[in-house]
Amino acid sequence: MIGAGPSGLAQLRAFQSAKAKGAEIPEVVCYEKQSNWGGLWNYTWRTGLDEHGEPVHCSMYRYLWSNGPKEGLEFADYSFEEHFGRPIASYPPRAVMFDYIEGRVNKAGVRDWIRFCHVARRITYDKATEKFTVIVEDLVNDREITEEFDWVVVASGHFSIPNVPEFSGFDTFNGRVLHAHDFRDAREFTGKDVLLIGTSYSAEDIGSQLWKYGAKSITVAHRTAPMGFKWPENWKEVPILEKVQGNIATFKDGTTMRVDAIILCTGYQHHFPFLADDLRLRTKNRLAAADLYKGVVYVTNPKLFYLGMQDQWYTFNMFDAQAWYVRDVILGRIQVPASDEERRADVKAREAAEDACADSHEAIEYQGAYVQELIDLTDYPSFDIKGANEAFFEWKDHKKQDIMGFRNHAYRSVMTGTMAPVHHTPWKDALEDSLESYLRTEPEPSSLQEAS
Amino acid sequence: MIGAGPSGLAQLRAFQSAKAKGAEIPEVVCYEKQSNWGGLWNYTWRTGLDEHGEPVHCSMYRYLWSNGPKEGLEFADYSFEEHFGRPIASYPPRAVMFDYIEGRVNKAGVRDWIRFCHVARRITYDKATEKFTVIVEDLVNDREITEEFDWVVVASGHFSIPNVPEFSGFDTFNGRVLHAHDFRDAREFTGKDVLLIGTSYSAEDIGSQLWKYGAKSITVAHRTAPMGFKWPENWKEVPILEKVQGNIATFKDGTTMRVDAIILCTGYQHHFPFLADDLRLRTKNRLAAADLYKGVVYVTNPKLFYLGMQDQWYTFNMFDAQAWYVRDVILGRIQVPASDEERRADVKAREAAEDACADSHEAIEYQGAYVQELIDLTDYPSFDIKGANEAFFEWKDHKKQDIMGFRNHAYRSVMTGTMAPVHHTPWKDALEDSLESYLRTEPEPSSLQEAS
Ligand SMILES: Cc1cc2nc3c(=O)[nH]c(=O)nc-3n(C[C@H](O)[C@H](O)[C@H](O)COP(=O)(O)OP(=O)(O)OC[C@H]3O[C@@H](n4cnc5c(N)ncnc54)[C@H](O)[C@@H]3O)c2cc1C
Ligand SMILES: Cc1cc2nc3c(=O)[nH]c(=O)nc-3n(C[C@H](O)[C@H](O)[C@H](O)COP(=O)(O)OP(=O)(O)OC[C@H]3O[C@@H](n4cnc5c(N)ncnc54)[C@H](O)[C@@H]3O)c2cc1C
Ligand SMILES: NC(=O)c1ccc[n+]([C@@H]2O[C@H](COP(=O)([O-])OP(=O)(O)OC[C@H]3O[C@@H](n4cnc5c(N)ncnc54)[C@H](OP(=O)(O)O)[C@@H]3O)[C@@H](O)[C@H]2O)c1
Ligand SMILES: NC(=O)c1ccc[n+]([C@@H]2O[C@H](COP(=O)([O-])OP(=O)(O)OC[C@H]3O[C@@H](n4cnc5c(N)ncnc54)[C@H](OP(=O)(O)O)[C@@H]3O)[C@@H](O)[C@H]2O)c1
Repeated sequence: MIGAGPSGLAQLRAFQSAKAKGAEIPEVVCYEKQSNWGGLWNYTWRTGLDEHGEPVHCSMYRYLWSNGPKEGLEFADYSFEEHFGRPIASYPPRAVMFDYIEGRVNKAGVRDWIRFCHVARRITYDKATEKFTVIVEDLVNDREITEEFDWVVVASGHFSIPNVPEFSGFDTFNGRVLHAHDFRDAREFTGKDVLLIGTSYSAEDIGSQLWKYGAKSITVAHRTAPMGFKWPENWKEVPILEKVQGNIATFKDGTTMRVDAIILCTGYQHHFPFLADDLRLRTKNRLAAADLYKGVVYVTNPKLFYLGMQDQWYTFNMFDAQAWYVRDVILGRIQVPASDEERRADVKAREAAEDACADSHEAIEYQGAYVQELIDLTDYPSFDIKGANEAFFEWKDHKKQDIMGFRNHAYRSVMTGTMAPVHHTPWKDALEDSLESYLRTEPEPSSLQEAS
Repeated sequence: MIGAGPSGLAQLRAFQSAKAKGAEIPEVVCYEKQSNWGGLWNYTWRTGLDEHGEPVHCSMYRYLWSNGPKEGLEFADYSFEEHFGRPIASYPPRAVMFDYIEGRVNKAGVRDWIRFCHVARRITYDKATEKFTVIVEDLVNDREITEEFDWVVVASGHFSIPNVPEFSGFDTFNGRVLHAHDFRDAREFTGKDVLLIGTSYSAEDIGSQLWKYGAKSITVAHRTAPMGFKWPENWKEVPILEKVQGNIATFKDGTTMRVDAIILCTGYQHHFPFLADDLRLRTKNRLAAADLYKGVVYVTNPKLFYLGMQDQWYTFNMFDAQAWYVRDVILGRIQVPASDEERRADVKAREAAEDACADSHEAIEYQGAYVQELIDLTDYPSFDIKGANEAFFEWKDHKKQDIMGFRNHAYRSVMTGTMAPVHHTPWKDALEDSLESYLRTEPEPSSLQEAS
């Protein structure tokens, strides 16, 4: 296994769960390049390259709160209520989510299966021996290790390597140009006029952070269409950027403005430099990822699996459904069709079904149905997917009503049936992002002010 | 060959020069991950990861001027005067240096030997066949290519992968923390209180830029000793950082101050993730790099060479001396001792001689003597190394006299004997960094003001 983020951890938990029920499981080794688990949820102040000269994986930033209700991503085998000992509010900040993610795997006791600070450098497959050769680097000791494996599960994520377009004049812009991947502390931009490019979750959420922490103005440029929410007064949407000169930005409609910084919220790339050509997934960021039978089995080599490579409405419990499925293929409980053609037909059907979705409601249902499809094939605890879809629909309505207030809502868990409490402080006033602050049952005046 | 920076280009020019004189040369292929040559001198606004998801190589920034006199680095076979058609001032900005670097190789006509946007992914050596297998990735077409070679020259630089230490509180600092590698436009910090860590060239030069472009204050923290120049009024040196809390920095002597941004000028790592363990150079940044016979031949595998891996007083003409030497080894004109022991003895002697240097004057002479040693073994045009050493000594004196004014001095070329003209505008007033502006013979009032 490559990667110990939510997807990789789901795979470890899947094997551990089978073992706990008496199954014989193969030797499982998980290589993780970071020094801790949690994937994107493992926050670091670092940007660019890390202490070992490797690309920093983290794309998250300070003050990040879940952008969807936790009721849509809850583990079916480990509820938020079980972890925290009581119901908690619906949009936890990063630190709370991290605690929850690690709670399940701590309980499962799988940390020993992970080799931290080991980066996968090169994986090849030998058709004759039917084995993978995996070369990893022990970053702490600066030494290479070569091992053979029968199966490989790639869970290295796809929201870490930025897609960074260039616009005319960037090479002489008199301020900071960065990608969302390198955004860290919103307070760096207090009092500034900030331009964001892109109209998806990163633009929406980073813009919201900037607003919350006192940016002077937020301007979002779109290539395709504006987001169209009811934005605060100092927030506007404009056509795509044409060029910058000094600090002056010119947009496609000819309008201009002075900007201090530019944040490219232009998405990420699927990037697998450690995989040999013939093993490397090449796909767009879409719900029906290319070349993956059942969304996980690499069509041309069914001993190779990819987890979590889809665009995501569902996250943690979808990764679980995938991991349980992959486990059962490896354990021989599930048969993958023997021919490339059959596997490809499955992919084609998934692509066609996604393309037929008329809107985001249908897309959510489409991904919900995919999760259901996999769950039905394994012993992963089934849950009320329709109910989870509903939480997503409500969430979208709440955003439409009040984009700076949607996180003040609460939803019902489809795992425990419990209604979440409303958070003690409206999101826009809760300037602190710590676990302690979020889990308090009463707001504290001091929580509004950070030591600074 | 890996890399088409100044070192790699020196190697191409060395082969082309032999060919022009009638020698038979082997097929030369140079893989360069960037889309253009020039190495660090190929400026980009990008930081972190590039458009292909690869680490951005460039560590240079806008408004960078050579930090040493050009008279210390001039090519012996292609003078500044030949390139620009007349003598030019002694501390050219980056764009002028780039133009000069590319002038020689344009004239030599070696561009076709380079495969741009090709990154070396993995190089191994087979003792049985005595060949290297080189796997490179064609970044534009996202395809791997595997080739065999008899010799490999690594010229991938060692001032690109940052050394990034962590200090207590960085994860909650309310401003930007960056390494010098990611520094780009000084105007981002106008009006700010900036803390720099480190006391070498990056700290000195980035601090100077910040001062020139209107930072409110510059504070430099040292681990070992302060730089001790006569700094401007809003510049101070302090003991090493102990911690940050919010925006408050606390230093080892217990003093505190509010800072807006922190720039880690803490040097770089030698980093060769593309080389198999047994081929990988492991060295500190020093004049006598570890494990390199004559500073270039990898001791345990004399078919593998490294260029420019030393710490550098001498640069371009030292890379030339190395490249001509390596060429002559490959052409069979020079014999490398057959045993590991003999090669290691050479390395040990170099280390001892460096360790015996009492001060920077002796260190400069030490590296000058090394350049001379290599030149004497090949047909690279000999030049007055003593004279070049003198230019370095003068430069150091000029820095001591006036750290914000040393670039207003001029030196004599040891290649042409010509005295450089004094630049038309004092460095601190020349806010523009373009080639056109530098090459003007008269200052223009407009050159003091950039469009912004
Ligand atoms: C800014 C941002 C905010 C998000 N917010 C939410 C949210 O609020 N709610 C939500 O449900 N989802 C959110 N997501 C979606 C996110 O994709 C998932 O929550 C989840 O992190 C995906 O898990 P993963 O394990 O597939 O990938 P990742 O979390 O990316 O983990 C991949 C792991 O693989 C490791 N790795 C990579 N390459 C190698 C290698 N060569 N060798 C060894 N190890 C390697 C990495 O270090 C990392 O630990 C967010 C994503 C982003 C970018
Ligand atoms: C901020 C800064 C300022 C400097 N200023 C000066 C100065 O004023 N004067 C001076 O003389 N020197 C200066 N230097 C020193 C500098 O090291 C040399 O001038 C010179 O650039 C070194 O040349 P090089 O070819 O050895 O390495 P680089 O210039 O680093 O070139 C290495 C090349 O290898 C390529 N490469 C790397 N990895 C791969 C791979 N895996 N596959 C394919 N290609 C690869 C890179 O893209 C790059 O083009 C400065 C250095 C820094 C960091
Ligand atoms: N708080 C949170 O929980 C949080 C915050 C941020 C992100 N996330 C997660 O992170 C993931 C990634 O989201 P994302 O927004 O970074 O990426 P994304 O969803 O892939 O969106 C990419 C955006 O970039 C635009 N774009 C791409 N190339 C462009 C170009 N050359 N010029 C102009 N625009 C360009 C796209 O515009 P077009 O529409 O025109 O193609 C699109 O708007 C999601 O899973 C999201 O949920 C979560
Ligand atoms: N305009 C220009 O031409 C220009 C500008 C910048 C750089 N350069 C070139 O770039 C190259 C690299 O220079 P550089 O200054 O980046 O690197 P460097 O010369 O290797 O110096 C590294 C510095 O970082 C300090 N340091 C390292 N680790 C530290 C830690 N953990 N805590 C505190 N301090 C730490 C070192 O301090 P100690 O002394 O205590 O070890 C040293 O001062 C040089 O060749 C230089 O000429 C040129």
